[in-house]
Amino acid sequence: MPGPAVILVSGGLDSATVLAMAASDGFECHAVSFRYGQRHELELDAATRVCRSLQAASHRVIDLDTAAFAGSSLTGSGEIPRGRSIEELGEGIPSTYVPARNLVFLSYALGIAEGIGSTDLFIGVNAVDYSGYPDCRPAFIESFSTMANLATRIGIETGAIRVHAPLQELGKGEIIQRGLELGVDYGLTVSCYAPGVDGAPCGECDSCILRARGFSEAGIEDPLTRRCS
Amino acid sequence: MPGPAVILVSGGLDSATVLAMAASDGFECHAVSFRYGQRHELELDAATRVCRSLQAASHRVIDLDTAAFAGSSLTGSGEIPRGRSIEELGEGIPSTYVPARNLVFLSYALGIAEGIGSTDLFIGVNAVDYSGYPDCRPAFIESFSTMANLATRIGIETGAIRVHAPLQELGKGEIIQRGLELGVDYGLTVSCYAPGVDGAPCGECDSCILRARGFSEAGIEDPLTRRCS
Repeated sequence: MPGPAVILVSGGLDSATVLAMAASDGFECHAVSFRYGQRHELELDAATRVCRSLQAASHRVIDLDTAAFAGSSLTGSGEIPRGRSIEELGEGIPSTYVPARNLVFLSYALGIAEGIGSTDLFIGVNAVDYSGYPDCRPAFIESFSTMANLATRIGIETGAIRVHAPLQELGKGEIIQRGLELGVDYGLTVSCYAPGVDGAPCGECDSCILRARGFSEAGIEDPLTRRCS
Repeated sequence: MPGPAVILVSGGLDSATVLAMAASDGFECHAVSFRYGQRHELELDAATRVCRSLQAASHRVIDLDTAAFAGSSLTGSGEIPRGRSIEELGEGIPSTYVPARNLVFLSYALGIAEGIGSTDLFIGVNAVDYSGYPDCRPAFIESFSTMANLATRIGIETGAIRVHAPLQELGKGEIIQRGLELGVDYGLTVSCYAPGVDGAPCGECDSCILRARGFSEAGIEDPLTRRCS
């Protein structure tokens, strides 16, 4: 029977869907978000709204010292790419890559899991992310699970630690369809890397482009776009 | 030829020795310490002294949010074990175990390494630690290295990321002898889990007991003890 689980929740649509999936599988969902020098805090507000809406058992926001994360346009002053085509999005590792970010996130999540007696971690990496981010690929997720069972008391005792990445094989459109079936309100989420002062998505960054394509694939209007127009 | 390396430096004698070994191997040593809700900050002061003394190229102190590290007597209010025999020290996982601590440390170190173009991490885990702490064992270190080469851009491009644990096979006495050959001043380090207000070691916690045995094995007087008597 599913017990407690630790879910990484960013405030975006992928992790909101994962939270809904873990809850639907019967896990007691303990959400974790990180403040790591993002350019804006809107996504943490979104994470809080999403956790409340999906009735997470708890929601921790962990402060990460940003000194370690030099070298990304998401946390520094570099240019965020804009207006790229879907094909260009698939090329190479983007400048928004934050070194070892998912690794640090999962490591914290594992510490929290051990503290609450959980062996289940959930993360919203998905097929769209693979080509760009090393720490979104299935090989990394699998390797982290193996390592986690060697790193912790609960892992050594049970061998049962598992990182669930239920979006792994899904495209954006499929993710959105699945989330809607589970009652996710995507109007609570944010995706834009650089929203305006009023929180409106820019519509031009990689994240906005992928989100728009996802809703288009799903044949549904984005509640965020509807709200803004 | 050795390039830049990231060294975890705690202020204790093991990591001071590792820093000296990495420097002696020709690496450009970038030291990292963590403020993670330890019971005292003396060890961070010690880390700073050690890095200065051994001429580290840089020294970062990273703040870790302690919320994730519930459940250890090192960061909480639990009793620190005192007066245990050497045999008792080898039994089970001690209450000073901090869930996933070395994993979080190494994950940060990896992020820093990637930022400075380094593929070499150094950590001071050693034979004495194995029985007690899951994340000090060679199997964990090896598994982390494998995972690190999948988690990062530099790992994917080079496959060269390696976690060095040069004390892995050494007992405390051997570590001290090696460090003295390399000019480590152990009078700058601290080991005690719960020093007095004047910084004097308690002499009764697991860490003091192991340190005392190490100097005894090395046939050398501990400069800290000499200073205090």
